[in-house]
Formats: sequence, structure tokens, C-alpha cells
Amino acid sequence: MPRIAYVNGRYLPHRQAAIHIEDRGLQFADSVYEVCEVKDGRLVDEERHMARLARSLSELHIAEPRKPAALGTILREVIRRNRVRNGIVYLQVTRGVAPRNHAFPKPAVPPGVIVTARSIDAAEGTARARAGIAVITTPDNRWDRVDIKSVGLLPNVLAKQKAHESGAFEAWFVDENGYVTEGSSTNAWILTADGVLVTHPAEHGILRGVTRGVVMEIAREEGMRVEERAFALAEALAAKEVFITASSTIVLPIVSIDGHRIGDGKPGPVATRLREIFHSHAQYGPLWATVVA
Amino acid sequence: MPRIAYVNGRYLPHRQAAIHIEDRGLQFADSVYEVCEVKDGRLVDEERHMARLARSLSELHIAEPRKPAALGTILREVIRRNRVRNGIVYLQVTRGVAPRNHAFPKPAVPPGVIVTARSIDAAEGTARARAGIAVITTPDNRWDRVDIKSVGLLPNVLAKQKAHESGAFEAWFVDENGYVTEGSSTNAWILTADGVLVTHPAEHGILRGVTRGVVMEIAREEGMRVEERAFALAEALAAKEVFITASSTIVLPIVSIDGHRIGDGKPGPVATRLREIFHSHAQYGPLWATVVA
Repeated sequence: MPRIAYVNGRYLPHRQAAIHIEDRGLQFADSVYEVCEVKDGRLVDEERHMARLARSLSELHIAEPRKPAALGTILREVIRRNRVRNGIVYLQVTRGVAPRNHAFPKPAVPPGVIVTARSIDAAEGTARARAGIAVITTPDNRWDRVDIKSVGLLPNVLAKQKAHESGAFEAWFVDENGYVTEGSSTNAWILTADGVLVTHPAEHGILRGVTRGVVMEIAREEGMRVEERAFALAEALAAKEVFITASSTIVLPIVSIDGHRIGDGKPGPVATRLREIFHSHAQYGPLWATVVA
Repeated sequence: MPRIAYVNGRYLPHRQAAIHIEDRGLQFADSVYEVCEVKDGRLVDEERHMARLARSLSELHIAEPRKPAALGTILREVIRRNRVRNGIVYLQVTRGVAPRNHAFPKPAVPPGVIVTARSIDAAEGTARARAGIAVITTPDNRWDRVDIKSVGLLPNVLAKQKAHESGAFEAWFVDENGYVTEGSSTNAWILTADGVLVTHPAEHGILRGVTRGVVMEIAREEGMRVEERAFALAEALAAKEVFITASSTIVLPIVSIDGHRIGDGKPGPVATRLREIFHSHAQYGPLWATVVA
């Protein structure tokens, strides 16, 4: 159970943590967010998350609410106050509170900052990785700028709900040309028959997953070939292995897509290995150094 | 200045009106809304707004938070407590508060209800209608289900901001085939050279404007020909008249698009007349009967 949340300068009991009804996050989805993993009490990939946050804010011309280091301090304080050893910390930055009008408030108002943290049962993730997950596909009906990590997630909500109603863990968006873009809250990967890892290029059509970037680096360090290119659903169905990545799930092997078995229907060795070595890399990798909470 | 807002069962001082940070409206734009006009202390087109709200809720499988009549009572109470004679009342219904997960909360949680009201200076609208407004165009980059009136309005925010930065009042979305779909917060209309009023069909590509529907009826009662079909930007540029409709602006004539003068650069007689007779119809029309606040 979350105990303490941070809202606009104050640490509050979670139950009382509220924002004004005219916050533009609620009125217009005019707000961006990050979800970072917490592993053994450490914040994982802080710099990459802060870099992506800065990009989202810049694309929307929302002012930086605080320097990344100050935001990092708040994240760690919320992790500490919620006694999270393994879980996630959530940061949202809104354009702030203003009388409702579509255009940006003029003059600008101070951005809103919300931070929550919660524990996740690591055993559950491990069990899921051992069994492998099912995904379904759904047409990619989202707007053109999903590279901006905004809270405008209604299409993602509907896709995830559709997955759960089908007994699947995740839904993959498939664009009008038949290419898999990404999952509703994860990035999509395949391992081709000739051993190449493939994931959609990080352009406007997908969110630049932090875990996606790290897995790409790890795979290359391991001597694997990694290609950033669009892949069709048919290619995924015929792939050796298929998996997803995200900060909240790390690497999860896929064993079926729309009910079609992938490979021998068991988690593949490459996805399993990437999952296993992810955190040993995370602790020591120079680009994504962690900070003791 | 708004004085009182309604939030989840309570009438609160506007400054203190808040929702929980884990309301799904803020986390996922998993929330729908209506904006109704208040004219001479009366709520305009209540039934149509309630019908559209019911449709939005149904499309998202959000439970009806209260019967339409009970919601209407709250709207009128907020109008009354804010002493609004001419202005708008805003209603938002969210899927409710739940620990953050994309899929719908299971079991479902009670929907959130937010109502605000504010006065609008009628003279400002009149002056704007007399001068005519400028619009710009921007690519329609929104998701496929803009017929659901959700708070996922970030593309609309960015379009409106682009308009304001160009000195225009509104931005029109133009789809990949060159057709005008609608404005960032208004519906788009043209009057062709042979006197036909044209507006985009109310399918998934646009929001079913309540004012759009009423203007369509009025125009037909006035003996005009009205066609619901897509029109290209080029057709709008060559039109006799061009205008927008919305609950907050009623009918506003357009005198320029992307800097190109429309007609003789002055508000046209048809748009002006539709604006003038809108409220006399509104007071007596059977389909959109008003209720004394």
C-alpha cells in the first residue's frame, strides 16, 4: 500500500494526495510522466528517465519544474518514505492549474509535480517470465505523437483492457501497414530465424522505452545483432522468440500472439538471458548508473 | 470568478476543489466531459448533452454516475451557486480512483463527477462575431475515436496554441486526404457557391457537436439545404461563407483561413443570421427545451 505521495512541494498521506480540478493534466491530458523501476532500493536508469522527461516537456513547451537532480531527490524520498525495495516510482509533470481554455495559460503557471511509489512482488514477475505471456493485437488508433510520454493514454487503456478480457497480458498495436509498433505499455521485440533482434525504430510512432534502450545496449555488448526496423505481425508469428520490455516488467517472453503459439510455446533462451542479466548490467553500467536510495 | 464547484457529491469552494492524484482522469485521460451553454440563466440543450454523455460513457464502459435528471440538478445548482446568467457549465465524469494500472479497475470503482460553471462576457462574443475570426489549418494527428468526448485533448491544445500564436482564433484539423474534419474545439462549416451548407459527417472522425446538430435543424427549418459530407480545404477557401459552431461560441463567421480572405473578408449573412436566430430557436424548440435555473 502506498503511504506517502509528493504533490506540488508537499509530502502527503497517499489518501489525501489531490490536485486541483482545473489542473490541465485532468482537463486536457496536458501532462507527461515517467515510471522508473526501483530495484533493491535503488532507482534504476535515473538519467535516462530524466532525459526522456526533459524531451517530453520540451516538445510540449512545459517549463522544467525543477532541475533533474532535485526531482531525483524527491523520487528517492518518496521511495524511502514508502519503504519500496522493489517496485516502481511514478512521476507526473502537468502544465499546471489554470481556468479551462485549450491554449497554454498566458502568462504560464507553475507546472504541477506528482510522485508516487509502490512495491511490486518480484516473485510474480519471475513466475510470469517463466511461464511466458500471451499477447493479442489491436489496430494502432493512437495519435501521431506517442513519442511524447503524455498521460493521454485512453487508447492504451482500451487496448490493455481488451488484452485482459482475452486472457492476455498485453496488447500490441499494429499500424495500417501491418507493422507492430509497440505494446499498450511496453515495447515489442522479435528474434528472427537468423538470430537478429528486431524492434521498431524510436521515431514518432513509438515511445522511446528506457528499458528498450538498455536492452539494446546489453544485447550488443553480448555480441548480438540488433536492428531497429518495423516488423510485420506475420514476421512476429514466425519468429524464433518474441518478447516485451518496460521499466515495470523488464523483459517478458511471449509464448502466444492472438492465440498462435510462438516457437515451441515456451519462453526462449535469449529473452530469458536478457532478463537475467538486465540488473547485473544495470548496477554497473556507466550510462545508467543507479543511486542508493 | 468561479466560486463553487461540485466534486464527487460535495459543493466546494472552487479553490479547494480537488480530486485524488490516482483518479484515472489524470492518470490516463480515462474520463469524458460536456460543456453546456448557459443563456439567461438557462441550461441550453440539456437533453442533447446528456444523450452525448451517455454515449461517451457507454463507448468506454464507464458506469452512469447518476441518472441524467440528477446530473441536471447538479448542473443547475452549480450554475445558481456561481450566479451564472450567461456562460458555460462544465461536467466531467471519470472512471474513478484506483491504483495505477492501464486496464479498468476490477471490481469497478465509483465514477468521479466534477462540475464547474463560469460566466462569459456576451459582448466579447458579439464583437468577435461582428469582426469575424481567422482560422489556421493543421494536420489532423488525433486518434481514431475523437467521437468519444474524452479529456485526451493534448492534440487539440497544441492546435489551439498554434492558432493563437498565429493570431488566429481557431485551428482546423485537415486529414491526410486534404479534408477538413473539425476545429480544435469547434465544428467546421462552409456555405458553397450554390448555397448549400456543408459540414463533416458525424462519424468517428469528428465530435458530434450539440450546437452543430441544432444549427443543422435550424438551417433546414429555414429552408436551406444542408449536406453532411467531407469538404476539402480548397473548397472552404473558395466558399461563399465559412463558420464554426460550438456550445461556447455558438456560430462564429470566419473571414480568413491560413491568411487567405474568405469571400469579401466580412462575416457572411447566413452565418450571421444563424447566430442571431440560434437562441430564439433554443428557447422554444421541442428537442432542446431549456430549464430555468
